[in-house]
Amino acid sequence: LKSRYFEDFIVGERFTTATYEVNAEEIVAFARQYDPQPFHLDLDSASRSIFGELVASGWHTTAIAMRLIVESRVLEATGVIGLGIDELRWPNALRPGDKLVVRCTVVGKEPSRSGKPRGTLRVKQEMFNQRDACVLSQTAILLVACRPQA
Amino acid sequence: LKSRYFEDFIVGERFTTATYEVNAEEIVAFARQYDPQPFHLDLDSASRSIFGELVASGWHTTAIAMRLIVESRVLEATGVIGLGIDELRWPNALRPGDKLVVRCTVVGKEPSRSGKPRGTLRVKQEMFNQRDACVLSQTAILLVACRPQA
Repeated sequence: LKSRYFEDFIVGERFTTATYEVNAEEIVAFARQYDPQPFHLDLDSASRSIFGELVASGWHTTAIAMRLIVESRVLEATGVIGLGIDELRWPNALRPGDKLVVRCTVVGKEPSRSGKPRGTLRVKQEMFNQRDACVLSQTAILLVACRPQA
Repeated sequence: LKSRYFEDFIVGERFTTATYEVNAEEIVAFARQYDPQPFHLDLDSASRSIFGELVASGWHTTAIAMRLIVESRVLEATGVIGLGIDELRWPNALRPGDKLVVRCTVVGKEPSRSGKPRGTLRVKQEMFNQRDACVLSQTAILLVACRPQA
């Protein structure tokens, strides 16, 4: 994808990222540092948990989506700068071996009220696994710069 | 904090976690893996960015809040199981050396409609630095089990 500025985005347009495969080692490493709960930390404890198997932390899930969006480079020139997130949901668990892709839809666009050369985009982000089950849905509010004037 | 079940929570009550200090090495390590942007990756590039200094990824910020909440052990018996998040905002940047604390307020409580022995809590979570500036505000929707019957 080509790097863009605020003017270049159109409400309704869609982007798809590359794919990312997550493994059990990465799920456990993230959980040890940031979400040390039995269903994220080891196969045996996870099998006796409410999930019945090892699943990724929801915050690991959001971090993987961020990586895919940054690496798409669509916002490389301006930065992927989040002001906030609305309606974050984890409708299905993320499991070892899942191959993930993020689909983005521009759902809102508003120029800066202060007249600064920038604006905010609202971008719906949905991450799917290889069975097309949604593991993350959220609407990001992004600060995006306008194209520099010559 | 003592571990609790769904029945034990009261709308309006508040909890405060322990504190956590974040350093530049951890900010950079997280960013390399999940948010590889110049303002998160090195001091020199960050100084020339929109932030003017090294700042943590917003997703690193949420992960640190999760760790503090899990380690508070208030939901140890039932698990901290998030269905989703509403109104996530990052009002101030998180910087190296910041000492963080999360304040939680129970803002909603609803028993399971299916009659299962569980319910959902809505918990407003606000993370502050040592200057009492808010670096994260969000409302978590948590699935919480009822106390097991004898």
